[in-house]
Amino acid sequence: MTRPRVAVLGPPHSFTHIAAVLFFGQDAEYLAQRSIPAVFEAVESNQADYGVAPVENSVEGPVGATLDELARTMLHIYAALEMRIRLVLARSGPGAPARVYSHPHGLAEARAALSRLLPGYEAVPAASTAEAAEAAARSGGYCVCSRAAAEAQGLEIVAEGVERGFNYTRFLVLAWRDQAERGERTSIIAAMPDRPGALYHWLRPFAERSIDLKMIYSRPVPSRPWHYNFYVDIAGTRLDPRVAEALEEAAERSLFLHILGSYPVHRLEEGRAGGGRRA
Amino acid sequence: MTRPRVAVLGPPHSFTHIAAVLFFGQDAEYLAQRSIPAVFEAVESNQADYGVAPVENSVEGPVGATLDELARTMLHIYAALEMRIRLVLARSGPGAPARVYSHPHGLAEARAALSRLLPGYEAVPAASTAEAAEAAARSGGYCVCSRAAAEAQGLEIVAEGVERGFNYTRFLVLAWRDQAERGERTSIIAAMPDRPGALYHWLRPFAERSIDLKMIYSRPVPSRPWHYNFYVDIAGTRLDPRVAEALEEAAERSLFLHILGSYPVHRLEEGRAGGGRRA
Repeated sequence: MTRPRVAVLGPPHSFTHIAAVLFFGQDAEYLAQRSIPAVFEAVESNQADYGVAPVENSVEGPVGATLDELARTMLHIYAALEMRIRLVLARSGPGAPARVYSHPHGLAEARAALSRLLPGYEAVPAASTAEAAEAAARSGGYCVCSRAAAEAQGLEIVAEGVERGFNYTRFLVLAWRDQAERGERTSIIAAMPDRPGALYHWLRPFAERSIDLKMIYSRPVPSRPWHYNFYVDIAGTRLDPRVAEALEEAAERSLFLHILGSYPVHRLEEGRAGGGRRA
Repeated sequence: MTRPRVAVLGPPHSFTHIAAVLFFGQDAEYLAQRSIPAVFEAVESNQADYGVAPVENSVEGPVGATLDELARTMLHIYAALEMRIRLVLARSGPGAPARVYSHPHGLAEARAALSRLLPGYEAVPAASTAEAAEAAARSGGYCVCSRAAAEAQGLEIVAEGVERGFNYTRFLVLAWRDQAERGERTSIIAAMPDRPGALYHWLRPFAERSIDLKMIYSRPVPSRPWHYNFYVDIAGTRLDPRVAEALEEAAERSLFLHILGSYPVHRLEEGRAGGGRRA
């Protein structure tokens, strides 16, 4: 296979970029995008073969922009990548001003550690943790980011593990191509009729077959205030007749039901050599 | 009753402040807070009698910080306030630089209108739409904010209704006091056992009694990756025996179930004189 072109959110050393390199390897061509819609559009327009975007964080919850793009797009989910997020506190050098750059999520995550290490610090929001590292290097100060981003900017690492508890992010690999046969998880979007008991009746085909729901999120429909689409991940592939039957029955109980794909879930370890995971 | 003290998110002319004044009237004492946890803490420490914070927007979805505070606090929901959000584009004056200040949600909402009215504009994120108006007045430029915020800063209104479609926000009024007797809606937080069919079985007591679910959101439990709490709004008061029975049966099927309150939902109209709504 030729060198794959992979659209990713954020510059090199963003967490999405790190996850993508662990999956596709150093030799792929990475196309950094400034927004989640841009990642989807790069694949849709065939500028990229794959796109990688975060979909859920175990502390912060779902990434709304990715769920909204999944509702709009015809792309499939090719794989999911789960990675533990580890944050460092780094600085431009000794005597750096107590100004901390990070993505708002990074600032929230590291609040307890920052209050202890740098009392009275000023928080400065940045578009991504990778851009926060650039800002700290350029303007002087501290940042909360990945180890790789800090090292790439030549920053001094002051503390490691400044995130709160266990923090995992799941990223989706998006493609035109579907690969249901390798799937261990199936993602769907559906809307139910607006009447009492609708969600209960919708869930019955899965409950009757003991199919496990891994995730269920509701998102408002912008054009219809207080109406919702549901994003549901279930265990299993739709090539399993039990899953296929449940999906068919659920579709009959839905206003619409769209299958985003059946796909494998890879657990990545940051810092481990990448490549070779993709078939 | 003495003049109530009301903790609100954001400075005067933030949308939370506008909603609070429509409900409590001009004569209440408003205590502006810089964060959602600070709104809850002001009531918990008895610095304020009531707190007002946004909980859901019909386009952007739930406000995570408010859901997380509801899981932590012992406060009750006293009332919900629903208000249509209308955004204006305002500027410091003719010849203002094409730099647009707003809260990231405001910038996202107005993207289509801005591309048409101000092609090639630079977007500058602010902590709130009210602070965006201050920044435009101070540094020169444009902002996307409420009409009231633009007028308070002496800005020139360039366009109205720059938001996308219909956009409603629901705010919660929080208090120590519970007022179940006037309730038309009941909010609960619950966690279900981690097994296939758990959500389905949990919903049965409501479905069997044709109790309508107005909202259901899942939020990750930070200490347990990929485990969730569910935030559920149902139609009706828990003083209705049918609702009380359903809640009791659901509690038996839950790891925990916490009732946040049964309360009335008020529809507010921005620009209409406030006061007198509170009994």
